[in-house]
Amino acid sequence: MGSRTNKATHRYQAPKGTRDFDPDAMAVRRHIQGAWHRASIDHGFDEVDGPTFEHLDLYTVKSGDEIVSELFSFRRAGGDVDYALRPEFTPTLARMIAARGASLPIPVKWFSIPTLFRAERPQRGRLREHVQWNVDVVGSGGPVFDAEVITTAIDGLARLGLTPEQVQVKISHRQVVASLLSSLGVSDSDVPKAFQLIDHRDRIPPDVFATKANEIGLSPDQMTLFDQIVQAAQSIGGGDQNLPDVPGLPKESLGAFEEIRDELVARDADAWCHFDLGIVRGLAYYTGLVFEIHETSGAERAVAGGGRYDKLVELFGGPSMPACGFGMGDVVLGLVLEDNGLIEPSKLKPQPDVFLISDGSALAESTLISLAAELRRQGLHVRYSYKSTRNVGKLLGEAGKANARKALILGSELEAGQITVKDLDAGTQNEIALSDLSSIL
Amino acid sequence: MGSRTNKATHRYQAPKGTRDFDPDAMAVRRHIQGAWHRASIDHGFDEVDGPTFEHLDLYTVKSGDEIVSELFSFRRAGGDVDYALRPEFTPTLARMIAARGASLPIPVKWFSIPTLFRAERPQRGRLREHVQWNVDVVGSGGPVFDAEVITTAIDGLARLGLTPEQVQVKISHRQVVASLLSSLGVSDSDVPKAFQLIDHRDRIPPDVFATKANEIGLSPDQMTLFDQIVQAAQSIGGGDQNLPDVPGLPKESLGAFEEIRDELVARDADAWCHFDLGIVRGLAYYTGLVFEIHETSGAERAVAGGGRYDKLVELFGGPSMPACGFGMGDVVLGLVLEDNGLIEPSKLKPQPDVFLISDGSALAESTLISLAAELRRQGLHVRYSYKSTRNVGKLLGEAGKANARKALILGSELEAGQITVKDLDAGTQNEIALSDLSSIL
Repeated sequence: MGSRTNKATHRYQAPKGTRDFDPDAMAVRRHIQGAWHRASIDHGFDEVDGPTFEHLDLYTVKSGDEIVSELFSFRRAGGDVDYALRPEFTPTLARMIAARGASLPIPVKWFSIPTLFRAERPQRGRLREHVQWNVDVVGSGGPVFDAEVITTAIDGLARLGLTPEQVQVKISHRQVVASLLSSLGVSDSDVPKAFQLIDHRDRIPPDVFATKANEIGLSPDQMTLFDQIVQAAQSIGGGDQNLPDVPGLPKESLGAFEEIRDELVARDADAWCHFDLGIVRGLAYYTGLVFEIHETSGAERAVAGGGRYDKLVELFGGPSMPACGFGMGDVVLGLVLEDNGLIEPSKLKPQPDVFLISDGSALAESTLISLAAELRRQGLHVRYSYKSTRNVGKLLGEAGKANARKALILGSELEAGQITVKDLDAGTQNEIALSDLSSIL
Repeated sequence: MGSRTNKATHRYQAPKGTRDFDPDAMAVRRHIQGAWHRASIDHGFDEVDGPTFEHLDLYTVKSGDEIVSELFSFRRAGGDVDYALRPEFTPTLARMIAARGASLPIPVKWFSIPTLFRAERPQRGRLREHVQWNVDVVGSGGPVFDAEVITTAIDGLARLGLTPEQVQVKISHRQVVASLLSSLGVSDSDVPKAFQLIDHRDRIPPDVFATKANEIGLSPDQMTLFDQIVQAAQSIGGGDQNLPDVPGLPKESLGAFEEIRDELVARDADAWCHFDLGIVRGLAYYTGLVFEIHETSGAERAVAGGGRYDKLVELFGGPSMPACGFGMGDVVLGLVLEDNGLIEPSKLKPQPDVFLISDGSALAESTLISLAAELRRQGLHVRYSYKSTRNVGKLLGEAGKANARKALILGSELEAGQITVKDLDAGTQNEIALSDLSSIL
């Protein structure tokens, strides 16, 4: 199996673009996943998952063979089937729904928190392995469900402490952008190219962008007009009932924005959102509303992206079903939370309910382990010191460092069936009967 | 990228030996993982994780190249580094600890719940992808820590409803078995072969086993003696302080069993355990105590396996550190829970706090969505119907089917600021002020 020359340098490190999660890093990951999980459940979504790897053609059927270079693909030794580590969850979701088809209660409201992979060069906010929150409504279409999906994303961010001043949902619509491009003279066959160009605009030099735009019929003057329209269209999210008078754009195409705005207002989510026709998303399968969530400072990549993909389930052999969803990765979100001072690993770790301390007396020594076992069986988070010291002051220090709620000090009073309970937050201390312990914990 | 001929049959299915988790299956997985997580936390372990794939030589360094055929290995297109999907977590753990070495507070008590992969033929209880609970204590050795690890495993099983009548920890010790084999005439160089043979005993035909045993000096008579000793050694876990008089076996080698028994008794865990010298574990890295957890009926494969591996951290370039841990997979455990009637997916799904119902009146219709949004922001699990009916009786039926705790019925009494709350468990119903809603939920 290939070159072993770089063994010594490689063996003891995580592969490039992947992460080791030590207890601090894992506490942050659990914190993020916990907020995602609770927001999904509270909004009425059911959790699902699929295999970590899929048949390679699950991905090539939709995007063609050129996607293969961005995938980690492989075969089993001696096998003849091509597999790939999943780069996104949507094809798995579409496959699962297509297979179950008409038997599913409609709408299907599913979420998942899969690990995903891409074989690209790692960059800030973009690693080879990451964890992504996926939320999807399938089988029912329309702005009600678009708004549900967006509101669930917002709720996940709000539970992590973010505010509309720090993150904003940029909402757009592929058909609106297409009719705008059309009115600017882009031919129908060039629209997919124009989408891709606009999606990459932030990542390519302005002169390269200008040249490529020109090739599909967008002169610098027309791009100026495009940007003016993007600017003007934002305001329809600000509570202005009158559509702006946009030259060259059929007004009625913006009606889709009014509907989604009304649904967001009904959910008190409009402060988190504005319209941005500069958003089109890169993936080929989107058919209507699209959105991205960005830090307002513009410091990081998109926190999340999603939209409506009404043709995908059919593509995987299922019935025709409208669908809308988003993906939110843990890497950019982690950076945004850090940028905004919202991550403190030491406060995110599970807090011990009790820290047991023996003062070294014979009965205390023989009681500590069995008491710990009993409290754990009752579902309490119990810690104690593994150090040889029996200095109660030092051990109380260790209990404080472990962030325990209470310290239980076992001493000579055990002979009278008594135990000392110290509340480490309040600093108070009192002696209670061992038999009353369960009731106060 | 290879053959595409079998595309049509493959594309819409999960790869062989992997699983789709629909909401019912996912609820079972969450239930199992939740018990593992809480048992680990309560016993004072910190959660960690590593990459889903590692450098291939992380696995070959320990086991040699022959392990490659059991791995899913791959390269990035155009890359020159060999990777493998992780078949177990222990090498990652040893790598992480070796890299952090002396800076870690001792003992290191870590757990993880990784997804693992093996490229073997799928069998009952053994899939190509599974989820495994790993619990390890590193840096401190001895029976205290062996017992902590075993007790944590037991606690995880107890929280899933299992009892000592249904599952048992079979405890053994490689050095004890080695001295037993030695006293039966197996040469030191044949001991690893003997371990492997004993580990596979259940899976090979008796005559093949007898032939192979004979090759390393274990005649049928000697195997009978071996089995008698295994039988006799069980009793030392039963509270008998006197070691059995075992012919050919140095009594003092069984002292290790007395120590671990005392620690298990102190933790009230001895009813879950017995000694079984027929257990040696397959992996090469175990150095002392080993154990497996089995269903007492013998119906399924081992639920968990583990032991002491005091040389592994050093092998990965770290300091010399004693270590003990186990792995418990979700596949066999799921079968054991099913066998014992302990799985009911419908009862494992998150229960909605409220199900909102509109009777169709204008104010109810315009209130429902905003009330749902407000309650969700308060952290409540809120559902409502997507059906067009406004028949309150039918909608109460849907609320009951969703297993909601309470139904909130919005009707004409909303005009007086009142709302009807129906407790779906108790069957009681009363009208309250909308402003009091938060306090009663």
